Amino acid sequence: MNAALVGVTGYSGVVLYQLLQQHPEVATIRLFGRSDSQPQPLVEAVPNFIGDHTMIEPLDAATVMANCDVIFFATSAGVTTKLAAPFIAANFPVIDLSGDYRLQDPQVFTKWYHKPAPAVSALQHSHYGLVEFANAAGHSYIANPGCYATATLLGLAPLAQQHLVVPDSIIVDAKSGTSGAGKKLATSTHFSQTNENLQLYKVNQHQHIPEIMQQLQIWDEQIPAIQFTTTLLPITRGIMATIYAKVASGVTTAQLTQAFNNTYAEHTFVRVLPNAQLPTLKEVVGTNFCDLGLSYNPITHTVLVVSVIDNLLKGAAGQALQNFNQYFGFAATAGLQLATVMP
Amino acid sequence: MNAALVGVTGYSGVVLYQLLQQHPEVATIRLFGRSDSQPQPLVEAVPNFIGDHTMIEPLDAATVMANCDVIFFATSAGVTTKLAAPFIAANFPVIDLSGDYRLQDPQVFTKWYHKPAPAVSALQHSHYGLVEFANAAGHSYIANPGCYATATLLGLAPLAQQHLVVPDSIIVDAKSGTSGAGKKLATSTHFSQTNENLQLYKVNQHQHIPEIMQQLQIWDEQIPAIQFTTTLLPITRGIMATIYAKVASGVTTAQLTQAFNNTYAEHTFVRVLPNAQLPTLKEVVGTNFCDLGLSYNPITHTVLVVSVIDNLLKGAAGQALQNFNQYFGFAATAGLQLATVMP
Amino acid sequence: MNAALVGVTGYSGVVLYQLLQQHPEVATIRLFGRSDSQPQPLVEAVPNFIGDHTMIEPLDAATVMANCDVIFFATSAGVTTKLAAPFIAANFPVIDLSGDYRLQDPQVFTKWYHKPAPAVSALQHSHYGLVEFANAAGHSYIANPGCYATATLLGLAPLAQQHLVVPDSIIVDAKSGTSGAGKKLATSTHFSQTNENLQLYKVNQHQHIPEIMQQLQIWDEQIPAIQFTTTLLPITRGIMATIYAKVASGVTTAQLTQAFNNTYAEHTFVRVLPNAQLPTLKEVVGTNFCDLGLSYNPITHTVLVVSVIDNLLKGAAGQALQNFNQYFGFAATAGLQLATVMP
Amino acid sequence: MNAALVGVTGYSGVVLYQLLQQHPEVATIRLFGRSDSQPQPLVEAVPNFIGDHTMIEPLDAATVMANCDVIFFATSAGVTTKLAAPFIAANFPVIDLSGDYRLQDPQVFTKWYHKPAPAVSALQHSHYGLVEFANAAGHSYIANPGCYATATLLGLAPLAQQHLVVPDSIIVDAKSGTSGAGKKLATSTHFSQTNENLQLYKVNQHQHIPEIMQQLQIWDEQIPAIQFTTTLLPITRGIMATIYAKVASGVTTAQLTQAFNNTYAEHTFVRVLPNAQLPTLKEVVGTNFCDLGLSYNPITHTVLVVSVIDNLLKGAAGQALQNFNQYFGFAATAGLQLATVMP
Repeated sequence: MNAALVGVTGYSGVVLYQLLQQHPEVATIRLFGRSDSQPQPLVEAVPNFIGDHTMIEPLDAATVMANCDVIFFATSAGVTTKLAAPFIAANFPVIDLSGDYRLQDPQVFTKWYHKPAPAVSALQHSHYGLVEFANAAGHSYIANPGCYATATLLGLAPLAQQHLVVPDSIIVDAKSGTSGAGKKLATSTHFSQTNENLQLYKVNQHQHIPEIMQQLQIWDEQIPAIQFTTTLLPITRGIMATIYAKVASGVTTAQLTQAFNNTYAEHTFVRVLPNAQLPTLKEVVGTNFCDLGLSYNPITHTVLVVSVIDNLLKGAAGQALQNFNQYFGFAATAGLQLATVMP
Repeated sequence: MNAALVGVTGYSGVVLYQLLQQHPEVATIRLFGRSDSQPQPLVEAVPNFIGDHTMIEPLDAATVMANCDVIFFATSAGVTTKLAAPFIAANFPVIDLSGDYRLQDPQVFTKWYHKPAPAVSALQHSHYGLVEFANAAGHSYIANPGCYATATLLGLAPLAQQHLVVPDSIIVDAKSGTSGAGKKLATSTHFSQTNENLQLYKVNQHQHIPEIMQQLQIWDEQIPAIQFTTTLLPITRGIMATIYAKVASGVTTAQLTQAFNNTYAEHTFVRVLPNAQLPTLKEVVGTNFCDLGLSYNPITHTVLVVSVIDNLLKGAAGQALQNFNQYFGFAATAGLQLATVMP
Repeated sequence: MNAALVGVTGYSGVVLYQLLQQHPEVATIRLFGRSDSQPQPLVEAVPNFIGDHTMIEPLDAATVMANCDVIFFATSAGVTTKLAAPFIAANFPVIDLSGDYRLQDPQVFTKWYHKPAPAVSALQHSHYGLVEFANAAGHSYIANPGCYATATLLGLAPLAQQHLVVPDSIIVDAKSGTSGAGKKLATSTHFSQTNENLQLYKVNQHQHIPEIMQQLQIWDEQIPAIQFTTTLLPITRGIMATIYAKVASGVTTAQLTQAFNNTYAEHTFVRVLPNAQLPTLKEVVGTNFCDLGLSYNPITHTVLVVSVIDNLLKGAAGQALQNFNQYFGFAATAGLQLATVMP
Repeated sequence: MNAALVGVTGYSGVVLYQLLQQHPEVATIRLFGRSDSQPQPLVEAVPNFIGDHTMIEPLDAATVMANCDVIFFATSAGVTTKLAAPFIAANFPVIDLSGDYRLQDPQVFTKWYHKPAPAVSALQHSHYGLVEFANAAGHSYIANPGCYATATLLGLAPLAQQHLVVPDSIIVDAKSGTSGAGKKLATSTHFSQTNENLQLYKVNQHQHIPEIMQQLQIWDEQIPAIQFTTTLLPITRGIMATIYAKVASGVTTAQLTQAFNNTYAEHTFVRVLPNAQLPTLKEVVGTNFCDLGLSYNPITHTVLVVSVIDNLLKGAAGQALQNFNQYFGFAATAGLQLATVMP
């Protein structure tokens, strides 16, 4: 299997490249930058890749399709809209880590991304690869879910699918490390500003909200909207989504627990903690796991679900590999048996 | 004015001692430890007080009452229950930073603190010193509010007092730095465990919940309970309480804003940010301010209130000085004109 | 006393403004930006100054000289070279926190700063304000020392002045928090890059080296050069200079200790720790102290001196106030009785 | 290959267990605690091992020797002295991550460890496994080097072996993250104390000094001693040893560079950076690499060598696997192809 990767210089791209190097079914990896770029040694662009002599080549669709079996895009918003056309036209397998093709409705895309949407036909051709609830087999264009969306949807799936909560009561207090904001310099991620601080941003305006709603409404069309708050943490890796909802009348703790256990019984990478234990962030950092804990408060009739992931693995490159494994029929865990960072 | 301070070795005690040293009305400060302790140089107990030759003396109530005008307790839960009796009997002014005398109902105390409660008469004699909504003048026993309680109650006061939200819809996602957990060694605050991590603890079981409910029900007896989540952050100082509630039918954004602005118009230490701006944690660290921001989401009918304080200042020693100023009739800002830590 | 301040938007400027506001002899503070700038509310430029309605005015020398008694420059390298001329011509008191006028020799300036030097006459008119070893009285142009230079020179002064070490054996392993690098965005201070990392920079090329050498050679002309390494720490505030030198033949531990104790006996803001105790960084953060510890190793004949300061206080704004106090004859500690940040 | 591991609950043990799980030649891993302990599920002792049902068994030498091919000790100082005897008597392969058997001289051991030394015969039987300069083949008792010792010795080896520096001029300013101090609670590693701080400890008294000297004197008996300073950093993982020495008369930059390049040309896990580039700490965290950079200052005649490792990998469990690979004749990189943590 020969893989092409566009966007290795970003954080998701870096991690995806590292995973692909260890994937048992991947023989070669070719790295690409913009089509008008000059060839550049990887180590110049990402100095930590000491000793790796791979070049980043200018992207050329014909070269990719002649030499590779799949292309991954780990690019910023708007880039695949411009670059993906020849691959879509040829039905060549694309795994797109950006948000460009996640939303079915171009108007929704434009509203949340403040950019022109890809063509409707391309959007509808696209597969939303939330791997525990979708199968990429047969879908040549795979839109890999966003990091916040992954943590949130995995935490909400059993509740939404089984109609266990009051539809208009869902609140998500999500927190992310700075790697989610990428490599681009910004005041909010300047060390002296971020360190020893908490900063809210894009409250109710984060571009992952519409993909969460699109999926939630497939599961339960009664859910009208969610409250979604995002807080920037003074740490590098990881997302915690702290989810609250009023439990529907008559639902018991046992039902809630069983819904989670049943939903994820066959899914290696989602672990439901027993006994109302709540996960810590670090137990998943470095891995592709999503850990879920739940706690029901009988006084407020509120269920608390805590969902943690490594934003660059389960929230980006790890899930992309899961989609890759699904598409090509490899083992679900191929290339993803990663150890938690301890301590 | 001569002040006595018990518990200078804890974090709140350290900060209170520093504030008292700068207070314009305080002439001398005497430091006390347990009554059965040996005299100890302060600098031995708290090495950062380089050059301070003050001794920590064993506590003796008669000595305090003969030489001082007020006693501050910055002690662990259960300690003032044992030590305060002679001061209460003599109506000697006590400002108690611990939780021992905050709750009126001894059964509630025992339920949440897992300790025997002080005498009912003493509890009822005690004044809950949430300074923006109470006046310590004339109250010789002042129970200084808890740090989480302060951040939460200041964020909820306008909503509760003016019945602007659905009573059973209040959710508080609170986050605290490690200094709130004090000086005592614990696995959860071991650097290798805390750093680059998020850990939930005491979910719906934190001992500040009953004092929040006690006060909320004074403001709005319809509020049956709140959902209260506490997360330990990898930072030292500061609390952020992220508060959610469904807005009552017919309430407008303008009304919400006006309620906050009116409530705090005369209160120097509570700043309501304009234009749906939300506070960052660092803008209050090092100061006695509580900064509040609010954002109404018309789609979910949810109001988000973000309340930030320095847990050791507005959440402990700073508010204790406000109570001291109220009791003795000093200027509200005396000893509290502190600069934000920047950067 | 009316003060003018240019450069309040940088980190040193922010801290200097906070200190001036609390200084007992300062009545008013006027803030200035570049002469061609538009007036701007302070709070717009530095959002944490909530509730401060001061404007940043375009700099006009005549206005300053007509209305103020002193001007502080907390500006980037090269700026005072352009702006200071009218103040120098008028002998108007200037306290300059930048490096522009610290070096006597214009060629040395150009070599290390890679910029044109100020006029020789102005350089020679300038007073290097290392306050423990200089007196600003009568010097209308005061060049405030750099942060690394302050920590290093205070650690080396007794050794150099009393010729206690082998002149060519001095090594300084200095470490700084990110606030020393200022507010300007850079990859090395991007949170995801800085956090959980150590990065060396400008090894033997830091622009504070020549001012250290200029001063050292006044104390001991035999010192030919020093080895000077700078490491960026994943913290915001503070500098630690770890200094090594071979002790001169026959020098005893007692002599070393006595040299430090005698040198700083009368200097409030330099504390020599007793008994070979070595300072921690946090014991000075938030204060104007420089803490020094020393440890002699009789096997390697090496003395270790550890010098810690808050880079923005003793290393910038705090020392600037000391110079201000010296120049105007105020008490040495006026405006500088600051409490250590604990914890 | 069946491996036994004693001490999985400590940080080195945790990481070693994770590595063994991924090692291609390891079939089973049995975990052991003290011989008088009760069997305990691993996940109870180390909660992050979610889903791992392995038990920690009480250590029984006969069981180990009957069922396993090798035993690893990742135990505290003094423990293998008590437990290793039956394995030594049977010539059963032991890889000991503790410091108990690193020093040949029992008196030196007692002086630095403040504990009784193991038997002389056992000490002399022991192989000091600094893998780049030793070969474990044929040595059934392998003492794995300490973390500081590894970073320091790899940085000094070319200089010492080729006599390129003045023997009594070596200074090591070493810095470590908190994981080096282990899991045991202590004030110096309490988050509120460690965070935003730097603390020196055990200056010239660290127990890794004698093993450094033992090895250095094998390379160059003229080296009498080194100055060795250890600083605790507010980060979890990694060691940086910043090494200074006066270059011997006549030695050129080219010779220094060549010495490093030649020494490590064949050693995969030591990377010498080109062009006076100095390594950052993060480029090795998560890997078994030691990265070295060097910079010669012709004015001070001092060479600066910066050596960085992940203290739990190259400084502990990673090097232990290298010894394991050497002993059993596996590929040098087996089980050690690890990706740097980025970002």
